Amino acid sequence: MNDKANTASDIRMKGSGYYSLATTGAKIVIDSAMPLIRGALDRMDIRDDGSVFAMADMGCADGGTSIDMVGQALRYVREKAPSRPLTMTYTDLPRNDFSQVFHNVHGLTDLPGYAPDIDNLYVFASGTSFHQRIFPDNALNFGFSATASHYISERPGPITNHVHMVGAEGAELAAYTEQGRADWERILGCRAAELVPGGGLVLLNFCRDEKGRYLGGTEGVNMFHTFDRLWREMAEDGAITMAEYEATVFPQYYRDIDECSAPLTDPNCPVHKAGLRLDHIETKVIDCPYRLDYEQHGDAAKFARDYIPTLRSWSESVFFAGLSEDRPLEERAELIDHYFDSYGTFVRENPTGQGMDYVHTYMVMHKE
Amino acid sequence: MNDKANTASDIRMKGSGYYSLATTGAKIVIDSAMPLIRGALDRMDIRDDGSVFAMADMGCADGGTSIDMVGQALRYVREKAPSRPLTMTYTDLPRNDFSQVFHNVHGLTDLPGYAPDIDNLYVFASGTSFHQRIFPDNALNFGFSATASHYISERPGPITNHVHMVGAEGAELAAYTEQGRADWERILGCRAAELVPGGGLVLLNFCRDEKGRYLGGTEGVNMFHTFDRLWREMAEDGAITMAEYEATVFPQYYRDIDECSAPLTDPNCPVHKAGLRLDHIETKVIDCPYRLDYEQHGDAAKFARDYIPTLRSWSESVFFAGLSEDRPLEERAELIDHYFDSYGTFVRENPTGQGMDYVHTYMVMHKE
Repeated sequence: MNDKANTASDIRMKGSGYYSLATTGAKIVIDSAMPLIRGALDRMDIRDDGSVFAMADMGCADGGTSIDMVGQALRYVREKAPSRPLTMTYTDLPRNDFSQVFHNVHGLTDLPGYAPDIDNLYVFASGTSFHQRIFPDNALNFGFSATASHYISERPGPITNHVHMVGAEGAELAAYTEQGRADWERILGCRAAELVPGGGLVLLNFCRDEKGRYLGGTEGVNMFHTFDRLWREMAEDGAITMAEYEATVFPQYYRDIDECSAPLTDPNCPVHKAGLRLDHIETKVIDCPYRLDYEQHGDAAKFARDYIPTLRSWSESVFFAGLSEDRPLEERAELIDHYFDSYGTFVRENPTGQGMDYVHTYMVMHKE
Repeated sequence: MNDKANTASDIRMKGSGYYSLATTGAKIVIDSAMPLIRGALDRMDIRDDGSVFAMADMGCADGGTSIDMVGQALRYVREKAPSRPLTMTYTDLPRNDFSQVFHNVHGLTDLPGYAPDIDNLYVFASGTSFHQRIFPDNALNFGFSATASHYISERPGPITNHVHMVGAEGAELAAYTEQGRADWERILGCRAAELVPGGGLVLLNFCRDEKGRYLGGTEGVNMFHTFDRLWREMAEDGAITMAEYEATVFPQYYRDIDECSAPLTDPNCPVHKAGLRLDHIETKVIDCPYRLDYEQHGDAAKFARDYIPTLRSWSESVFFAGLSEDRPLEERAELIDHYFDSYGTFVRENPTGQGMDYVHTYMVMHKE
C-alpha cells in the first residue's frame, strides 16, 4: 500500500498545459500505475511473432487521462515486438464522445496523441458496456480500465437512509453488495474469455480500502455524507419530497479489497475456473487536486467555485433522476441548481478538510 | 448496366418510417447492391472454422443508410459459419458522430439496429481515413464502402472556371485526374493489404458513367453547373471577389468506369500485384427522391424548401472555405445564406428537371 503517493508539486508538473484540475487527479491515478503495467507486460513474455497485439482501455471517456500511459505501454510493446501490428481499442457506453477520443489519440488536439508516432498501429472504439462481451474469445492481449467498474449494471433497490451505498445498512446494503459481487464476477468473466492465454489485465477501481476509506471519504469532511445531508435537508424543508430523497441513489458499489480479490482466489468461482489469476493488489490514495490547490491559494470562494462544478459534472444526473417526473423540467433544474448552490455555500463557509481524495485498488491479473 | 432501377413507389416503401428523403436515395443505392454482396460472400467460400470474420463499412457516416444491408450481410455470414465470431467495424473521419453509429447499430434508435439480434458479434469504430491503413495486414474478410471514395485526399490546385472537376478543363482537369488516380490506387492498395487472401470488397462510388452522367448531371438542370453559375454571378455582382470564386473547389474526383477499373486490370499496377482482382463492375442511376416527390405533389415552393437544405448540408463547407478569412465570420455566413437562397429561388421558379440523381459504379473485387 502506498498512501498519498503524489504531492501538489507532482500535480502541478504533470498537469501543466494539458490537464485541468478536474482531470489531473484521474490522470495521476493512471500514471502511477505505469510500473505495474510495465511489469505486467514484462511477465507476458511478448514474442516478436508478427501476430496482432491487441490492447484496450475500457471505460475510457475521452481517452485524455490515459493517453500518456497508453502511448508508453504501446511503445513498450513495440520495442519488444517490432513485427507485431498493434491495435488499441477504446470502449465506453454508446453515448460517449468517441469523436473526441479519436481527435485526442490521432494528435488533433493539445493532448499528446501517440498514434501518428507509432508505426503499424490501428486505433478502434467500441460502444459496448464492459458488463458485456466487447471482444471475441481469445482476442485481447492486454486490458486496462480505470475508475469505471464501480458502476453497477442496475440499481438492485432503494437506499432509504442515504444516497450512496457507503451509507447504506442492513438488507438495503446487502442488495448492493450482492449486485456489486455479481457485476464484478460478470465483468471479470467477460475479460477472462476475451484475453488470450498469457494475456494481462490491469484494473484500477474505486474501492473501500483497508482503513475503510473511499472516494471523498478519507479524512476531513465526508463528500457522500455531505451529498446526503444536504439532499435530506431539502426533503425536510419540503423543497423535495421524502419519496424523492429515498429514490435518489448512486448506481455504484465500492468493493473492498477482499471483494475485489474473491473471484480470482476462489477456486469455485467461474472467473477462477476460466483461468484468470491475481498477480498483485494494492490500494492507493491520491490527494484531491482542488484541496491541494486551495491549500496553496487559501481562497475559500475560489475553492468552491472550482470544485463544485466538477462534483456536479458526475453527480447531478443522479439527483436529477431522483426527482419526480411530475415536476416540470424547469422546476427540476432549479432544484438541482439550488442543491449545488447549497454545497458551494457549505464549502465556502467550511473549506478546511473538504475535497475528493481518490481511493483505488490497483490490480494486476493474467490468464493462464 | 441497370438504369433507373428504382421507382417512386420503391422509395416510399423502403423509406417509410425510418428514413427521410435526405437519406432515402443513399439507402436505395446501398440496398440495390445486396445481390452483389450476397454473390461476393458466396464466392468467398466461407468456412465454419471458428476464426473471426471481420466486415467493415468504410466512410459510414452515421451507419443509418447501410444498416439493413449490414444486418443482412452479417446474418448471411452467420448462416454459413455458425461458429465464427463476427466483427463489424464502422470507419469515417475522426469528426464523425460515432456515438450515433453505436446508438443506431445497438438498437437504441428507431432504425433497425441488428446488433442485439446477432450472436457472437462485436461492433467497433475507427476514426482513420480510408486514404490510410485502417486494419492490420490480412485482417479484413469483407469490406464495403458507399458514396465516399470520390473525396480526394487534397486539392491538387485551383479550378478557375468552375467549382467542380466535372467542369474543369486542360491542365487544371489533368491535375484532378491525376489526384483521383493516385488516391484511388492508394485506397485500393490499402484495402488489398488489409484483406485476407480470398477476402472480398464491394465498393459503390460516385462516377461519370458510360453516357457521361454524374451526380446531379443526368437529364434536366445540371446541379454542379448551377452551383457554379450562381457562385460566379455573386462574383460578377461584386458580392464576392473573383479570387474567392476561383478558390472554391469541391475536393472530389468522379472517376469514369475505365479509371475505376484500371488498378485492377493493369498487371503493372501495385494494386494488381497485391492480388486485388475485379469480379464485376456496372453503373446505376438512382432517381433523386426530392424530384420524385415533387412529381407527386407538384408544389415548387415545397420542392425548394425540402431539397435545398440537403444540397446545402454537404456543400456549404466548400463555399464557406472559398471565402476570404479577412471577411468577418458573420459576413461569410450571410454570403452563404444569400447563395443558397438564390439556389432556392432558382428551383422555385424553374422546378422542372431539378434534382440530384445518384450515378454510381458498383464494383465487386476479391484478393487472390
